[in-house]
Amino acid sequence: MAENDIEVEGFEREGSGVFESKTLLKEPLLRNRINNTSQLAIVGSNVYPIESLDYEIIENDLFKQDWRSRKKIEIFHYVVLKWTLALLIGLFTGLIGFFNNLAVENIAGFKLLLTNNLMLKERYYQAFAVFASCNLILASAAAALCAYIAPAAAGSGIPEVKAYLNGIDAHSILAPSTLFVKIFGSILGVAAGFVVGKEGPMVHTGACIANLLGQGGSRKYRLTWKWLRYFKNDRDRRDLITCGAAAGVAAAFRAPVGGVLFALEEAASWWRSALLWRTFFTTAVVAVVLRGFMDFCKGGTCGLFGEGGLIMFDVNSVKAIYNAPDLLAVIFLGVIGGILGSFYNFLVNKVLRSYSFINERGPLFKVLLVMAVSLLTSCCSYGLPWLSGCIPCPPDMLNQCPTVGRSGNYKNFQCPPNHYNGLASLFFNTNDDAIRNLFSPSAEKEFHLSTLLVFFVAIYFLGIITYGIAVPSGLFIPVILAGASYGRLVGTLLGSISDLDAGLFALLGAASFLGGTMRMTVSLCVILLELTNNLLMLPLMMLVLLVSKTVADCFNKGVYDQILILKGLPYMEAHAEPYMSNLVASDVVAGPLVTFSGVEKVGNIFHALKITGHNGFPVIDKPPFSNSPELCGLVLRSHLLVLLKRKRFSKQRIMTGSDIMRRFKAHDFAKAGSGKGIKLEDLHITEEDMEMYVDLHPITNTSPYTVVETMSLAKAAVLFRELGLRHLLVVPKTLERPPIVGILTRHDFMPEHVLGLYPHLHHHK
Amino acid sequence: MAENDIEVEGFEREGSGVFESKTLLKEPLLRNRINNTSQLAIVGSNVYPIESLDYEIIENDLFKQDWRSRKKIEIFHYVVLKWTLALLIGLFTGLIGFFNNLAVENIAGFKLLLTNNLMLKERYYQAFAVFASCNLILASAAAALCAYIAPAAAGSGIPEVKAYLNGIDAHSILAPSTLFVKIFGSILGVAAGFVVGKEGPMVHTGACIANLLGQGGSRKYRLTWKWLRYFKNDRDRRDLITCGAAAGVAAAFRAPVGGVLFALEEAASWWRSALLWRTFFTTAVVAVVLRGFMDFCKGGTCGLFGEGGLIMFDVNSVKAIYNAPDLLAVIFLGVIGGILGSFYNFLVNKVLRSYSFINERGPLFKVLLVMAVSLLTSCCSYGLPWLSGCIPCPPDMLNQCPTVGRSGNYKNFQCPPNHYNGLASLFFNTNDDAIRNLFSPSAEKEFHLSTLLVFFVAIYFLGIITYGIAVPSGLFIPVILAGASYGRLVGTLLGSISDLDAGLFALLGAASFLGGTMRMTVSLCVILLELTNNLLMLPLMMLVLLVSKTVADCFNKGVYDQILILKGLPYMEAHAEPYMSNLVASDVVAGPLVTFSGVEKVGNIFHALKITGHNGFPVIDKPPFSNSPELCGLVLRSHLLVLLKRKRFSKQRIMTGSDIMRRFKAHDFAKAGSGKGIKLEDLHITEEDMEMYVDLHPITNTSPYTVVETMSLAKAAVLFRELGLRHLLVVPKTLERPPIVGILTRHDFMPEHVLGLYPHLHHHK
Repeated sequence: MAENDIEVEGFEREGSGVFESKTLLKEPLLRNRINNTSQLAIVGSNVYPIESLDYEIIENDLFKQDWRSRKKIEIFHYVVLKWTLALLIGLFTGLIGFFNNLAVENIAGFKLLLTNNLMLKERYYQAFAVFASCNLILASAAAALCAYIAPAAAGSGIPEVKAYLNGIDAHSILAPSTLFVKIFGSILGVAAGFVVGKEGPMVHTGACIANLLGQGGSRKYRLTWKWLRYFKNDRDRRDLITCGAAAGVAAAFRAPVGGVLFALEEAASWWRSALLWRTFFTTAVVAVVLRGFMDFCKGGTCGLFGEGGLIMFDVNSVKAIYNAPDLLAVIFLGVIGGILGSFYNFLVNKVLRSYSFINERGPLFKVLLVMAVSLLTSCCSYGLPWLSGCIPCPPDMLNQCPTVGRSGNYKNFQCPPNHYNGLASLFFNTNDDAIRNLFSPSAEKEFHLSTLLVFFVAIYFLGIITYGIAVPSGLFIPVILAGASYGRLVGTLLGSISDLDAGLFALLGAASFLGGTMRMTVSLCVILLELTNNLLMLPLMMLVLLVSKTVADCFNKGVYDQILILKGLPYMEAHAEPYMSNLVASDVVAGPLVTFSGVEKVGNIFHALKITGHNGFPVIDKPPFSNSPELCGLVLRSHLLVLLKRKRFSKQRIMTGSDIMRRFKAHDFAKAGSGKGIKLEDLHITEEDMEMYVDLHPITNTSPYTVVETMSLAKAAVLFRELGLRHLLVVPKTLERPPIVGILTRHDFMPEHVLGLYPHLHHHK
Repeated sequence: MAENDIEVEGFEREGSGVFESKTLLKEPLLRNRINNTSQLAIVGSNVYPIESLDYEIIENDLFKQDWRSRKKIEIFHYVVLKWTLALLIGLFTGLIGFFNNLAVENIAGFKLLLTNNLMLKERYYQAFAVFASCNLILASAAAALCAYIAPAAAGSGIPEVKAYLNGIDAHSILAPSTLFVKIFGSILGVAAGFVVGKEGPMVHTGACIANLLGQGGSRKYRLTWKWLRYFKNDRDRRDLITCGAAAGVAAAFRAPVGGVLFALEEAASWWRSALLWRTFFTTAVVAVVLRGFMDFCKGGTCGLFGEGGLIMFDVNSVKAIYNAPDLLAVIFLGVIGGILGSFYNFLVNKVLRSYSFINERGPLFKVLLVMAVSLLTSCCSYGLPWLSGCIPCPPDMLNQCPTVGRSGNYKNFQCPPNHYNGLASLFFNTNDDAIRNLFSPSAEKEFHLSTLLVFFVAIYFLGIITYGIAVPSGLFIPVILAGASYGRLVGTLLGSISDLDAGLFALLGAASFLGGTMRMTVSLCVILLELTNNLLMLPLMMLVLLVSKTVADCFNKGVYDQILILKGLPYMEAHAEPYMSNLVASDVVAGPLVTFSGVEKVGNIFHALKITGHNGFPVIDKPPFSNSPELCGLVLRSHLLVLLKRKRFSKQRIMTGSDIMRRFKAHDFAKAGSGKGIKLEDLHITEEDMEMYVDLHPITNTSPYTVVETMSLAKAAVLFRELGLRHLLVVPKTLERPPIVGILTRHDFMPEHVLGLYPHLHHHK
């Protein structure tokens, strides 16, 4: 506990519970959980402080003054801006989604062409060298970006967005640098042939764009708009980032409705009907933008970018007619898919824990790990197809088969003319094309059982070892790839029992894996329908998703929830834990409390801000300002800093509220973007100032949410979570006590904290 | 104010605000709103008392005892039951949905065949007589069921379900008799050729089924299951009814995902992720059941029931290729559709107000009104096609055209052989077939401009005058019919400008009308996609829905919200009204308060229950049971009644809690189904009992949610609404006062009440 310690000033406790500053080990993952501390998060293998967001409306006198004087035109401006921002989020996300696709298809296509040309000349070793070194260069570039510029950009990004929308702001998770690295890192990573997707990164990208717009731009990069100050609060930012997450899915899968549902089901912790509408608008914009670019590219003006329509994997031609044995086969598929999916989560968890020991050694080790995985992936992609024999092209497909000298679905590889290599069509291809191959009807393409088995095993494990390395890496595509090959394998095996097409089995297999790892239902169903344009599959898809989710839920949590836990993010679940009914609110608040008087000495405030990291302080009016001590409200650290900075002090202990109300506007106290507010070091308080007084009434939130000390902890947790609070005041039940008992914060509801205080409740769990 | 008055005991105030009982005029609609009273609702033109639902967990000592002793097996039972009930709701709703379709197609088909045969013999007057009298008989039967057995079954039912899910239980709205009438009334009403749909009634039916299962059956009809007692609380019933509403939409439109989204976007006021999953399961069951029956009927074993698949209006064959002028045309369509949609709402509102004066005169007048509308509809359906000329059949459709002697889409009517009548194909048909005709590609069928115009005007106004008569009547189909004809009209007009097919215009027109009247977005979009199986239309559909909703929102509220207001249901919006920020909680609570001591005299309790209608009473411990008066919690009327009924009294004023804890189980206090709990008249309290004492501690909810009296009303409203409360205690800020200031209930947050107390806030609105 010596030099390894870091001091986490300003973050270790939200409310003013404990007085002494806590110290925490800079030891990620395991230690962080064991110590019952949830104040640090592991982002991109680095440990960062986290801060809670506050969705409560801070109703202090300044807010009320501002509210009363608000003109109709300002409200109109706000509404117009809100929708303009939604439009912009849609536009930019759509644009980046298209750019991402275009870049990946061209880079990866060029790489494959280069290799293919060498293979045609039968210079196989040279081909491998070119292939592997292309991959290695792309991978190292992605890793270097990630490791040196924005470690937060590694991984999927969905857990972080989910945490943000739950009220946890981890350092730099939505910063402009993260956005930059996420976009280019994702392109390089996918083009490098890793078994990673661009879907998670797109969600993160959408959220970053939304955050950038909602911050009033970035002061660091001189991109600011003054008229965005209306959005300088956590509530509006939350709404924007929800729109951004939806836009990300919409752009990645070209699935606008699926995007809305993803934001609703997986990403967002709070939802309301108005947001549904705005999110829907954003994803509609994404769809229109994408559609426009696709039309533009139809003429072949976009290089190797294919002639894809809005539907990524159109399997609409396959007829879905099924009867009882098919249903049984599908249920079987779902059960095994659920088991394999939850095992996937288990392995991802293990691998992440192992990688964290490598990644924490420094950026260089991160890059080396990425290079190692890249080499392994290249060996698999190039080596394994040699196991497969050559298959003659279907006679009616001769103009498409084999595809030589262009991107396509029948890879010639080492085979003679008019033959194709089944494994190469899957391995030696972009991930999107491999999925398209797996989903294609069996009449169009036949895969050997061994081909599917080899591909399934390789992809299953490659996917697992790839997630966690320092490149932006989505989980959707690896899971869909593994699931589709598994489904097609089962479909081919059951060919004699079931009449369903092997392509449909591949689709259902992908659904079962997605359900087994991600545990979503409606959104996955709609995303898959939008991906494949086959509504007739709906009942089967619903069935397989329900079965696999149910089975997988018996084993572990969803993959995103696991990563949240691993990163030490204090995520608040929607429901209270059962054992919380046995405790009351006062059982978990710690003392003593730091409170201020309504008119407080500047020195006291400065001292309290300096020695504690609390973010909220109760204000108590005492005689002569009231007859007896009474709760006036809650004042926030950030508001105190603004007030102290401007030095509106008085020599006497008198109410100077009206003066402050004249000098300040409500938006002077608007919440700055993360890491951009006034810090204690920015204050220049003289010795003389310290002895003066300042009136806190104008900035005191006079309507804080409260619970009585005897309120059960479970119900307090529901209140805290449902209303998106940062501080919840606990008031006493009897009259002899001071008017406030303590403050409950997110930390106090965490199972680690509660069970740490009351270990005997463990068996109630 | 003499004999017309009714006394609404037990309902006029939830909390114990006012002491005197209020009297209310039995004058529906307008008067009810003007008097600032939201305690009565107008259901099927009758005035009924309403009761608030309580979604708070009542954590009293009995509950805690039960919670601690709950065994794992009981929790397992509960989970299994929960899913079994979801399964059963899906099964029954799917079954009824299929039965409904089957019956309507057969009855209406038989009626049309009969008329058609007479027309073939050129006995036109006789044909009209048969047609009109068939309609009249069916209509009268539906009206008689509605008027005499279950007036609550009239209308759509969606507003009532929405109100229930917002926490308002209106009398008999989900009763078994309502279910019965809703099913058969809807079949008869649709078969009678009214311009009404079966969708709203199906939602109501689904909710009724869910309620019946969640009540532990109906004691009146001796359908009870003892093991359903776990679900005897408002939270679980709410979840079941949400599933039921989703199942209803899924069954009506064969749109399982649309059903889930409808429940989420329109019906439910509270939502959580777990519910999404369960709702999804229910609608999946509906889809499987429907699919099974459709397969069964494919052999022609279901009489005149067509060979419909799961997709109702398959327009997948139509290609959606569009460019800039098409987008402009679609936006134009959306704007006009939004205006016409909001005008539809305006007219429906006017007509409902007029009808209420007829309907309140008695059941006979209701039936007469239905008969009048039926005659008018028959005249339009039979008379207007004569305006249309005869069109030669398309040469490649000769085996389908004209359809004589069977249900079909090319109606011969009065035309010579190999010709069909355009208007008759729309009017002289079932509503579903008319929609199918309108959605069909223009290559397949051409409608004259005049045909479309006549049909549009007739259907627009027929739809408006039909809603509000005493038959179960959905709004979806009339709006889709009017919208589709409007869209096809615009499409035909713009044929020279836009390349889009007239059938697609019809679909987009229907979307614009739906957006303009119902103001949903995502759910309508998905429902329409599932109805038509054309995913490529998605961007256009989103665009038109967004435009029409935005335009219509400028004029008035959505049609369901209007009906809610008209019925006087105290619906709580998700957001607080702006002027509420200017008030604090104590501004709206009325005094004096009725409170009980922890150990209270039986006579006092009995007296308080008798003379007040309050449903919650604060319990305050006084010396000698505590050092000073302190808030113990809140006790519910229904729990007091159970306690008094069993007479566990003591002669002395002592704590007898442990005795009561032994004698009672938590489920003795489980909430009975609506109208089934113990009433005050069921108690037999002797004079001797009156002088005895009873210990209220075991049944006192010790964790009531509280706000400080200075909390702004806006934030209190958010708390109340988000947590689904029935009572919110207001505690004092200073120590000199009694420990409780008042109770806030749903009534206190209603704009009428608040603005009635503070009329000067009107201009802040």
